[in-house]
Amino acid sequence: MQFIEYQRNYENKTRKSKRWYSRSARVFAGGVNHNIRFFEPYPFVTDAAKGRYLFDVDGNRYTDYWMGHWALILGHSPKPVVKALSEQIKNGILFGTVNDVSIELGELIQKLMPRAEHIRFSNTGAEATMYAVRLARAKTGKRVIAKVIGGWHGFNTTLMQTVNYPFEAQEGPGLVDDESQFIESIPFNDLDRSLKVLETVRDDLACIIIEPLLGSAGCIPAVDGYLQGLQEFAAKNDSLFILDEIVTGFRLSLRGATSIYKLEPDIFTIGKIVGGGMPIGAVCGKKEIMSLADPVLKKEKELRCAIGGGTFSANPMTMNAGLATLNYLKENSNRIYTKINKLGNDARSGIAKIFSEAKVDVRVTGTGSLYLMHFLNGGANNVSTATDVAMSNKELLRKYHLALIAKHGIFFLPLKMGAFSDAHDDRDVKNLLAATRSIVDSGILHNKDSVTKEI
Amino acid sequence: MQFIEYQRNYENKTRKSKRWYSRSARVFAGGVNHNIRFFEPYPFVTDAAKGRYLFDVDGNRYTDYWMGHWALILGHSPKPVVKALSEQIKNGILFGTVNDVSIELGELIQKLMPRAEHIRFSNTGAEATMYAVRLARAKTGKRVIAKVIGGWHGFNTTLMQTVNYPFEAQEGPGLVDDESQFIESIPFNDLDRSLKVLETVRDDLACIIIEPLLGSAGCIPAVDGYLQGLQEFAAKNDSLFILDEIVTGFRLSLRGATSIYKLEPDIFTIGKIVGGGMPIGAVCGKKEIMSLADPVLKKEKELRCAIGGGTFSANPMTMNAGLATLNYLKENSNRIYTKINKLGNDARSGIAKIFSEAKVDVRVTGTGSLYLMHFLNGGANNVSTATDVAMSNKELLRKYHLALIAKHGIFFLPLKMGAFSDAHDDRDVKNLLAATRSIVDSGILHNKDSVTKEI
Repeated sequence: MQFIEYQRNYENKTRKSKRWYSRSARVFAGGVNHNIRFFEPYPFVTDAAKGRYLFDVDGNRYTDYWMGHWALILGHSPKPVVKALSEQIKNGILFGTVNDVSIELGELIQKLMPRAEHIRFSNTGAEATMYAVRLARAKTGKRVIAKVIGGWHGFNTTLMQTVNYPFEAQEGPGLVDDESQFIESIPFNDLDRSLKVLETVRDDLACIIIEPLLGSAGCIPAVDGYLQGLQEFAAKNDSLFILDEIVTGFRLSLRGATSIYKLEPDIFTIGKIVGGGMPIGAVCGKKEIMSLADPVLKKEKELRCAIGGGTFSANPMTMNAGLATLNYLKENSNRIYTKINKLGNDARSGIAKIFSEAKVDVRVTGTGSLYLMHFLNGGANNVSTATDVAMSNKELLRKYHLALIAKHGIFFLPLKMGAFSDAHDDRDVKNLLAATRSIVDSGILHNKDSVTKEI
Repeated sequence: MQFIEYQRNYENKTRKSKRWYSRSARVFAGGVNHNIRFFEPYPFVTDAAKGRYLFDVDGNRYTDYWMGHWALILGHSPKPVVKALSEQIKNGILFGTVNDVSIELGELIQKLMPRAEHIRFSNTGAEATMYAVRLARAKTGKRVIAKVIGGWHGFNTTLMQTVNYPFEAQEGPGLVDDESQFIESIPFNDLDRSLKVLETVRDDLACIIIEPLLGSAGCIPAVDGYLQGLQEFAAKNDSLFILDEIVTGFRLSLRGATSIYKLEPDIFTIGKIVGGGMPIGAVCGKKEIMSLADPVLKKEKELRCAIGGGTFSANPMTMNAGLATLNYLKENSNRIYTKINKLGNDARSGIAKIFSEAKVDVRVTGTGSLYLMHFLNGGANNVSTATDVAMSNKELLRKYHLALIAKHGIFFLPLKMGAFSDAHDDRDVKNLLAATRSIVDSGILHNKDSVTKEI
């Protein structure tokens, strides 16, 4: 089977999507509201989602591994969340005031993640990380923010740097060099080189912000000692260590990567899962830091670190969905994390085995319930940085993912890592492996000619 | 009646709130997730909301004029929104993919506001304005952003300047001077002085961003000719004119302030109402500008203006709530806008009359369904800029608002403007006027001794 046949298959079964997408392109630039949601030849148009499945406007069903940007750890519309939201809807969807359920969710987060001495809810992860680094600058009086090459903390102006390859180039027009001068980037998983870079800015280093698992840049867990080494450097230099757990919080464990790696971040950010699928971000941290933003203690604007909030912060829909999700995770934590981590392990090892037997040079990265395949170009043997991922063969990964969508009803957002949820089970791994074998057998992933050719 | 009695009244009826709030303060810095939500002696804790009412944990009922930061033009949990959300909940609350209902909402916005040639949904207004100015810089290749003194565009780093009095001072620690150097601020409603400031930066002026009604800074509509004058200056100098309609869009009319003031913004931002109470922001504008962010046309990061998005962008809950709201507004636009504008007019003139008869020097500002009272200090005779508002007697306004809450079950977020919704009616105006008269009669707003005294 040629790749063109997969593509024809996709186009044949998504005729209504194609028409909807052309309407979408007249409304939204590129037809999307998030750049990564576009894929060739056109993205199918979702109509509904339930459990492990997405359904498009043509009635096709896809086993979903994208799972709402990895936010939906219980699957689509899980019962506890449906129940909580159904009850809330009639009693107000936006209060704009202090409310009881936000306090309950905050207290539960504190119980699970005791380093959240104080919390500020925002509506997105991009806001949470923006406020986190602002707090770090306020606390330290220093200016430089160190981040990882390929590290992703949302579209906020401050952290929108060294995100995409080529990493040293500005992330597109509209960002101003003078405003970007205080970002210093370090190579993930390379402690020696990272510390050397940090040394050059140590006197003005406000913070190091880092994902414990490089998420958007390629599903790469931190190696032992790396995060601890950075944390130590920060502590020694009166800089803050900020762990961005927006993807990993309540994903790698009920207590986040902080607990797995035994870290003591001064500030950490969470999002995604903690809102139960509803918009959320949160910055959490030490009282002595968070109190800089306290409007009661710091009445004068000159003293107060100005962080949001936002109109929709702590809205009762998000708060209830998040509370229902965390309560369910807490009550079923052994079962759920054991299950989704095993699904992740089985998928990683099964896929690696299939590619290895077929002599297609693939590395499968990830940990727990997160995983991604990387087609190597015969160069690097390992995938441990964003640069390694950038150097891999994205064209083959794109074909593999589109073939899964086109013929096998399996959805990864092309090029992005997949996540298991509690709605998935062993059959899904079996199906994924069978589909992978079928695609490998088709030969489209061996065809070296097609590597550099655009469809 | 002394002010202390109002306060005792408040404390007596909000005993449970007091306990909840002290829990809140152990979770959140200052006990809040948005600075303005704190008020003395402590904010009541909301438990539910319905129609025109907020209910606190003690069972008190308040006629709500805060209305979810003015987002809830149909009141709390209006039927069309409850219906739309109830149906969606079971069919997925977050897709993370292109979806049909986002296209329908986008098309409806385009029909009502044809200058939305292309739209990008984000999750908050703060994101929308951040992306708007980024697009302007990308389009023009220039760096300076002009904003109004007191203009409020959310907590994003770029626009977090000259927001609070004293306006010339940095908005607190954690913001970096070097990153703020490209903001130039102009005095609202003073075209001559504004143009003089703009002249000094004309060659590097990327855009002017402005609210048609100064919202958070004091509910002050633009005077005739001011917005047009700024728009002309921008057009003449190859700079962009950005209208921030996050508060005014679908509030002042179905077609926004753009239509009322006959403006032709290059970019405009909307939020609040357009999400039907669910988290939303959107940047809308000319195709030639929005296409700079098109991930299909601009595949290379060097060419593409990097704007979000976000995990929750175009999520089906927000999209359905927004669609239900706009459809309902469209089908009932004459009735609704006539009604809420009349309520606004009646409230403004009635309140002004009461204070005038009592010889308390108050100006009531606003337009349409938005209104706010300003206690003058014997100085300025008019309230037309953020500075006028800053110079007014906030302590008396705070007492007036707390007295409304404490004794009359009427809720303005203290110091903030109020909004009528379709859930309000004539009786609410009558109650508000009677309550105002009662508070004026109590003498607490005359007591000059108390002006500078903290409670």
